[in-house]
Amino acid sequence: LMMPGRTSALNDNIDVMVLLPDNNTYLFSYQRVFPAIEFARKTLNGSELFGGLKFNVRYENSGCGGDALFALVDKQKEERPDLVLGPVCEYAAAPVMRVASHWNIPVISAGALATGFREKNSEFSHLTRIAPTYLKMAETFLAIFKDFTWRTAYLIYEDDKEERNCFFTMEGVFTVLSEYHIVTDLAVLNSHEERVDTDGIISSTYGSEVVIMCAKADKIRELMLAFHRRKLTSDSHIFFNIELFNSSSYGDGSWRRGDKFDNEAKAAYSFLNTVTLLRSTKPEFEVFSMEMKKSQQESGIPVCEDCSAVNMFMEGFHDALLLYAFALRDVMSNGLTKKDGRQITHSMWNRTFEGIAGQVSLDANGDRNGDFSIVRMTDPDAGTHETIMNFGTNGTFKPMPGFKREWFSLRTAPEPPPPKHIESSSG
Amino acid sequence: LMMPGRTSALNDNIDVMVLLPDNNTYLFSYQRVFPAIEFARKTLNGSELFGGLKFNVRYENSGCGGDALFALVDKQKEERPDLVLGPVCEYAAAPVMRVASHWNIPVISAGALATGFREKNSEFSHLTRIAPTYLKMAETFLAIFKDFTWRTAYLIYEDDKEERNCFFTMEGVFTVLSEYHIVTDLAVLNSHEERVDTDGIISSTYGSEVVIMCAKADKIRELMLAFHRRKLTSDSHIFFNIELFNSSSYGDGSWRRGDKFDNEAKAAYSFLNTVTLLRSTKPEFEVFSMEMKKSQQESGIPVCEDCSAVNMFMEGFHDALLLYAFALRDVMSNGLTKKDGRQITHSMWNRTFEGIAGQVSLDANGDRNGDFSIVRMTDPDAGTHETIMNFGTNGTFKPMPGFKREWFSLRTAPEPPPPKHIESSSG
Repeated sequence: LMMPGRTSALNDNIDVMVLLPDNNTYLFSYQRVFPAIEFARKTLNGSELFGGLKFNVRYENSGCGGDALFALVDKQKEERPDLVLGPVCEYAAAPVMRVASHWNIPVISAGALATGFREKNSEFSHLTRIAPTYLKMAETFLAIFKDFTWRTAYLIYEDDKEERNCFFTMEGVFTVLSEYHIVTDLAVLNSHEERVDTDGIISSTYGSEVVIMCAKADKIRELMLAFHRRKLTSDSHIFFNIELFNSSSYGDGSWRRGDKFDNEAKAAYSFLNTVTLLRSTKPEFEVFSMEMKKSQQESGIPVCEDCSAVNMFMEGFHDALLLYAFALRDVMSNGLTKKDGRQITHSMWNRTFEGIAGQVSLDANGDRNGDFSIVRMTDPDAGTHETIMNFGTNGTFKPMPGFKREWFSLRTAPEPPPPKHIESSSG
Repeated sequence: LMMPGRTSALNDNIDVMVLLPDNNTYLFSYQRVFPAIEFARKTLNGSELFGGLKFNVRYENSGCGGDALFALVDKQKEERPDLVLGPVCEYAAAPVMRVASHWNIPVISAGALATGFREKNSEFSHLTRIAPTYLKMAETFLAIFKDFTWRTAYLIYEDDKEERNCFFTMEGVFTVLSEYHIVTDLAVLNSHEERVDTDGIISSTYGSEVVIMCAKADKIRELMLAFHRRKLTSDSHIFFNIELFNSSSYGDGSWRRGDKFDNEAKAAYSFLNTVTLLRSTKPEFEVFSMEMKKSQQESGIPVCEDCSAVNMFMEGFHDALLLYAFALRDVMSNGLTKKDGRQITHSMWNRTFEGIAGQVSLDANGDRNGDFSIVRMTDPDAGTHETIMNFGTNGTFKPMPGFKREWFSLRTAPEPPPPKHIESSSG
């Protein structure tokens, strides 16, 4: 039995609205992400099945706030796009996703990772998230908490009251740990204040087995130095730092500053576990990576020599276009059109496909399953880091060769804080 | 010198979009408010200066959530209204006001009273608030705190996580008192739980001179009974209840339930001060009031016999249409048109005019100056209430004949809570 249209090539014009900020301080700026979308478009163009799809990609500066919504609602009915890519920033994304859902337009974002957007039954019905959400990341914590039977966590995060990446990151952790009745306590660092009240934080830390931090690099270093000086690093606490995108929100995980505290910081960081996205690569990825580097250099965006010019937003929005094309094909083979946004959206969910960097798997709720790693200093003398654990979906995790179980063993229960006069921090 | 057009009659069609909920459980439902808007339209129609204005009032069901935004953005460019009336609910209002401001459309609401909407420099630039905001109400607290030199307040509010009237009410109080370095502590009552943890609340109350509450009537009664039983009402604390709209969110201020606790409740309520809107009336108001009662009866909305069928939303949206007409006239006399939304908006601000119930005065930021009253039981035997103080703008207040200064005098400083075993509450 031949399904009509099943194997025939698609022919259609697809209007794509890309809502990303103009400003290159964002890792997901249009200048950075656009070449990745172009790459995907060319790939599809060169394929037999999708070569007839013509993508009209129109870019609008979303900023990181309300402008994204205005860009969408300013379109007259006949100008409305068939697909929205972005926004990334949560406050820009929320109203765009509401209106796009209302207008039956699929939205794919490599951002909008906040926990609230998991509600796909009503206002975010047309949202597909092509990057692993904060909730998925938080599940790695749950897996490791369960394995080591930890019961208490102290969450420290920085809040800039604007983008609020670390707030939303920690909201995911808080949500998951709370559901499993792990006792959590919170400390907020104000981004607009340079000083960190390390004394206050340390005295609140004593009762918790695990400390989880999300903050800019300098604040993490200040905290780790303080924890180490007060001897909290030795026996009674486990320390985690969340650093998902290697963006300035999360810090670069490095103890080195070239100041007089470098040695002390190196010693302190030997107790720090950094949770990050697991980045896989395959041979084909190299071509993509080189193209991206070239495009960025042409745009005047500084690219470091040895490191990858590709971030997960570039990967994500690249894969978004592929995913949309796959789903569109299936939906059209059932006699529907590009205007059936809801069906296209649902066809993207619960799907696994080959993305530019490796396999991409969307769960039944349209959120990407993520793989995460824990990186730790494995040579305290040299100060070098290695991946010590990898986390897959469903709470599975795999220790890597360098892993030592003792790093995660609490030798003493958390103690009450010492009386104030015994020790006082300097610096 | 004659200003051209200054005294000539206006002639224009004005498209008005009314964004209110369909559901009559809201005091500001379309059915209730529509007759008030009609009344204003007729008044303008019968006037020499405004008789040429034709208001095309189109109603859209805003619900209390995201539907309001959809109603607005679904309009094609040529269908966009010249004026938006509503929404009232904060979460419905926020995105509507953003998009309307972006489209240069004036918005007048008798709601959207939350503190965040005072930011008129950017996203809420086209919003005029025709009812006194929570911040204005909070200024009455500041005035009385200053007069009696109270320094500490305990804020108790109920949160339904949906409309959040009491949350936004208390946010205003918190904002104002914090700015003046009055120490505040907070307790949240979950609307979805019937039980109130009175023990927990009472033990947190001891350190505060003043207790300010916003909750449904039954919860206020439960709290007052508990405070009274623990003898907190006698000497060391002052109690306030906020009850702005006589809606179910705020409770009806009554101690009477017909249960065995009525006498005790009456005694407890003799220590309770209720902050409410000052409602003025003038002879012309009676005609309006009777018309409103008639319209509501025709719509099948139950109207009580002795009490007023007019609430402040009906007054507000009535006055909104007058205000718009006055501003439009001034703007047009300067050669501008109904499409100059920003200028019309600014012409509405910093303006005083005769509303349906009395003088209405808008401040320079486009928010109505409000008058508030404090009502208290003045005859503890009969249990009857009277207005004991009236508050005007700029923190002025006026004691009424029944006022007694001793009601607001703290005879003893707040004490530490008694040891748990001494007294235990029953019921």
